[in-house]
Amino acid sequence: MPSFAARYNGITGSAIREIFKIIAQPGVISFAGGNPAAEALENGRISDLAREALAEDGKRILQYGGSEGWPALKEAASAFLAERGVNASPETLLPVSGTTQTIDLLCKALIDPGDTILVENPSFLGAFQTMRLYQAHLSPIQTDGDGVIPDALEDAIKSAHPKLVYLIPTFQNPTGVTLCVERRKAIAALAARYDIYILEDDPYRDLRYSGETLPTIHSFDQSGRVLYMASFSKLISPGLRVGVVAAPPDLMRKLVIGKQSTDLHTDQLSQAIVARYLSQGFLPGHLAELRALYGERLRRMLDGLDRMGLEHTTPEGGLFVWGKLPKGVDARAVLDRAIQRKVAFVPGTHFYCDGGHDETLRLNFSNSDPDTIDRGLDALAQVI
Amino acid sequence: MPSFAARYNGITGSAIREIFKIIAQPGVISFAGGNPAAEALENGRISDLAREALAEDGKRILQYGGSEGWPALKEAASAFLAERGVNASPETLLPVSGTTQTIDLLCKALIDPGDTILVENPSFLGAFQTMRLYQAHLSPIQTDGDGVIPDALEDAIKSAHPKLVYLIPTFQNPTGVTLCVERRKAIAALAARYDIYILEDDPYRDLRYSGETLPTIHSFDQSGRVLYMASFSKLISPGLRVGVVAAPPDLMRKLVIGKQSTDLHTDQLSQAIVARYLSQGFLPGHLAELRALYGERLRRMLDGLDRMGLEHTTPEGGLFVWGKLPKGVDARAVLDRAIQRKVAFVPGTHFYCDGGHDETLRLNFSNSDPDTIDRGLDALAQVI
Repeated sequence: MPSFAARYNGITGSAIREIFKIIAQPGVISFAGGNPAAEALENGRISDLAREALAEDGKRILQYGGSEGWPALKEAASAFLAERGVNASPETLLPVSGTTQTIDLLCKALIDPGDTILVENPSFLGAFQTMRLYQAHLSPIQTDGDGVIPDALEDAIKSAHPKLVYLIPTFQNPTGVTLCVERRKAIAALAARYDIYILEDDPYRDLRYSGETLPTIHSFDQSGRVLYMASFSKLISPGLRVGVVAAPPDLMRKLVIGKQSTDLHTDQLSQAIVARYLSQGFLPGHLAELRALYGERLRRMLDGLDRMGLEHTTPEGGLFVWGKLPKGVDARAVLDRAIQRKVAFVPGTHFYCDGGHDETLRLNFSNSDPDTIDRGLDALAQVI
Repeated sequence: MPSFAARYNGITGSAIREIFKIIAQPGVISFAGGNPAAEALENGRISDLAREALAEDGKRILQYGGSEGWPALKEAASAFLAERGVNASPETLLPVSGTTQTIDLLCKALIDPGDTILVENPSFLGAFQTMRLYQAHLSPIQTDGDGVIPDALEDAIKSAHPKLVYLIPTFQNPTGVTLCVERRKAIAALAARYDIYILEDDPYRDLRYSGETLPTIHSFDQSGRVLYMASFSKLISPGLRVGVVAAPPDLMRKLVIGKQSTDLHTDQLSQAIVARYLSQGFLPGHLAELRALYGERLRRMLDGLDRMGLEHTTPEGGLFVWGKLPKGVDARAVLDRAIQRKVAFVPGTHFYCDGGHDETLRLNFSNSDPDTIDRGLDALAQVI
């Protein structure tokens, strides 16, 4: 039998695949996943924008396009980023088929087998799998309640000589923690001092329900070493698979060649839909609705966790709360029983690049209405 | 400065990028590219299908989906393939974001640096770049006017121990040559005998303007080692980026994990549009139109080449004719002068994995109307 490539050694697929099969069953209350609420998906508006785009520009949309992306999306995304303090002209942006693809293309451009990527611990498990398929060595950075500790990051840079540092500084996945502003400044300075790429993954930034918006790490960067990734999955639709990455010219050239040889270009109908969504000004109103909807759900979840007496983070935004079960209780065992009561979540151990932390769990609140959150947490309390 | 990964050594991007910048200029007659005719892109119908899909299924389309693909597309593609003699149940199919992605995912699953892939010589240059980014060694297979020579393929398999054999058996890109049926049978037998994967890339199959349809290599395969790739780019729209690949379960598992970590899943709006396009039976009528449209253009091009006295292949379908300039004439020099007269094509040397063959050229006929073809060939004749 033909053998598979060495990069697949030890790769078994996402550990949470099985959980997603369970939550697809009817009647299951899911605190797993990071899905937008069904109410947040505007099929009528998307349909109108698709019709407009195809009427005005259909022959160009349906034809082959450039690997560099749909020009109108690059323009609209540049304006979107400027409003968020991210200075990125259209030429410095690459539209991608979701930000998972950015991580894939960056690894393709930068990572030789055995190269180190520094990651928050815990961090987004999907990114781990992408990185591991490039045979990257994932090394954890020490964090606390304010995010990555810059001194710890500096020590890790000096000892591990990473090719890339992967950070989710705002409403982090899975913890919901936000990196404080002084540390953002310090981390941008580290990128310059050690001349290494920092990937700022920022999909939740606009989903803030309380507190003050913080500047991006990218906004403090003078060196061109902080790469900024924005996703429209949480803001408009994940099913359309559209995000952008801002990168300096030398790296951008590699990303475009990688894009060309990976899928030629991103779906142009979806690029055109997102471009029109942004340029016609629908986002601010939609974000106000999302914030009201998800903010209430977050409050309900935090109240429920307090009632249960479960230790947890208190995010000011995003999609996730991070919980800690009593010492000695394994979240995987709790999940097995919770599933029998039709409640699902993701055990926290999967988000640690080095495993362990069996008592942790990630809870999503965006995809259940407040009363369902109460019922789900009640069932969970009984299991624990 | 951070260094790039070794896989980029020697990769400079598609050699024909510059040509595509030229053909984007107004007034240029392009025999380069492999674009469908603008008339063939049905923006009205696609718009209707998008509206229907989003009205009936919008919440599911716009939400995260499975890496395994949109179920209705898998069903429709399975029926589409069955009509073409390709026996592939929906579970054995993976929807991809264009068939370039299939090549990328297959290389990810199979290719370690230095592994050999056997390719027709000449063959599709985009595939070469994808394979080279996995540091594959590309080794040529001897061909003649009936396609790959099975004895030569067997010798190459025995001496090079390839991980993969990449073939475009029908209306090949770039030559337009079709592999004869006896050889298809023989090649399927070689896959079984030597237990190696053969990738049958078959995007032009339905674009036959004369002669008899031949069975696929896949239809002769008893071993599960012939992988079949179908694209909807040439039949419906390349801008939507939708194709499928049929693969056996062990390999499919790796492809799905690769897909998950590459872009999570293919755009669901486009998957739903293509599913509806197929299941509502629009394809046969559209294909009849395409065949009439492109068949006339092919005849006009062949007549023009005969008038010019240029040696050329005589394809029965597809998008390309392969030409040969008089000995000692370099197609790249001809291109430089042709561009001054606003005519473009692709020099054939780029399609050879080992270069050379400077006198060859690839001519596309689908994207120019018959009179434009005449004018373009007249200009070319003057240059030569």
